Amino acid sequence: MNEIVFGFRAVIEAVESGADIDKIFLKKDVQSELARDLYAAVKGRDIPVFRVPVEKINKLCKKNHQGIIAFVSPVAYQKITSIIPALYEQGKNPLVVVLDGITDTRNFGAIARTCECAGVDAIVIPQQGSASITPDAVKTSAGALLRIPVCREHNLQFVLNFLKDSGLKVVGASEKARKFYTEEDLTAPVAIVMGAEDKGISAANLELCDECLRIPIEGFTASLNVSVAAGIMIYEVIRQRR
Amino acid sequence: MNEIVFGFRAVIEAVESGADIDKIFLKKDVQSELARDLYAAVKGRDIPVFRVPVEKINKLCKKNHQGIIAFVSPVAYQKITSIIPALYEQGKNPLVVVLDGITDTRNFGAIARTCECAGVDAIVIPQQGSASITPDAVKTSAGALLRIPVCREHNLQFVLNFLKDSGLKVVGASEKARKFYTEEDLTAPVAIVMGAEDKGISAANLELCDECLRIPIEGFTASLNVSVAAGIMIYEVIRQRR
Repeated sequence: MNEIVFGFRAVIEAVESGADIDKIFLKKDVQSELARDLYAAVKGRDIPVFRVPVEKINKLCKKNHQGIIAFVSPVAYQKITSIIPALYEQGKNPLVVVLDGITDTRNFGAIARTCECAGVDAIVIPQQGSASITPDAVKTSAGALLRIPVCREHNLQFVLNFLKDSGLKVVGASEKARKFYTEEDLTAPVAIVMGAEDKGISAANLELCDECLRIPIEGFTASLNVSVAAGIMIYEVIRQRR
Repeated sequence: MNEIVFGFRAVIEAVESGADIDKIFLKKDVQSELARDLYAAVKGRDIPVFRVPVEKINKLCKKNHQGIIAFVSPVAYQKITSIIPALYEQGKNPLVVVLDGITDTRNFGAIARTCECAGVDAIVIPQQGSASITPDAVKTSAGALLRIPVCREHNLQFVLNFLKDSGLKVVGASEKARKFYTEEDLTAPVAIVMGAEDKGISAANLELCDECLRIPIEGFTASLNVSVAAGIMIYEVIRQRR
């Protein structure tokens, strides 16, 4: 499902055609004219290029790849700046989930599945440092990733500010918050920010949250699995809105 | 952490000492006196013996295993019939989670983590057809499985009847239920039954539930991941009790 494009000409063509490319692997020491053309093509397009040992590329592609492969996303990423106005036009009460650096594919898939089940309007992930829509992620999402809009955005701070300007209450899930998630009114338009498995929400993004909320922990385990925590937060919104 | 015991004498000794053995792998075609001794030892002890190809045992144990290995659990399983009376004596309001055939280790670990976080009093799993407390499960539970009582019971129907007789409301999570999980009073002693990833709760166990509850699904994905669904159910109990 996740197509691999290989060879310089094919990858540059895919980039220039506007295909949704998750990332490009480029052989560590390539310094050719074509490599320069590649960098020129990706410029301004938010496509990460990783310099990797050629063995890594060999493992992924048995063909004559010339030291370059691109991973084309199985679905087209969308833009949050287009989705929110469209939701308001349809008379909807937006519910958006922002994932700040969820890297585990199974967690990402499970959260997408919950979002689709709950009727979340869009999932926002950052361009870098996030799991992306791979076949594995689609599988663990039970296909939900093919049905829910996913926005892969360059700058989460821009997104959070945009959501706030658009009238959404931005709430972050954090174990350090004072307020319980059940104490906040979540009936109006809302964006839920979930942080990385290890570090939680980044300081810069946490600062942009209108409110931080926590799920009560009675036991000795410090935190819930992030996909479970996301499910609890999302379904609290659904509960309150019913 | 999950100790492997190998060789007939050692395994039989471990069984007879009352060690918590998850399962025994026995070479397919062994028909010796010692094999008969083994079957005599496990009789009445609820330890499953699987007949497997010797290659499977070779992979798990490089030593002179004689065609037999036993997996000793890293923690001692407990008895639900002891736990419930003790909870009442302590003046507690029991909350128990029964897992009817959850086989995926990561889901089992995530549910155990949620249970420990939420202060669930015990997890019940069946003897057969369930993930058990393996090192992988302990890891994905973030250590929670070392801190929460787990009861591995031979007969879930017996357990559900025992829980009902002990004054717990037994509620099953099912997508086919009519009532929403938020519509049921869960403040009194309660047992939540979660079904297998594929088949849900077995018909026999479903029949013993006092109430079946569902989590609303707005999207096209048929169901939530079971560890997410368990988290939502468990935290609804916590929310109502606060």
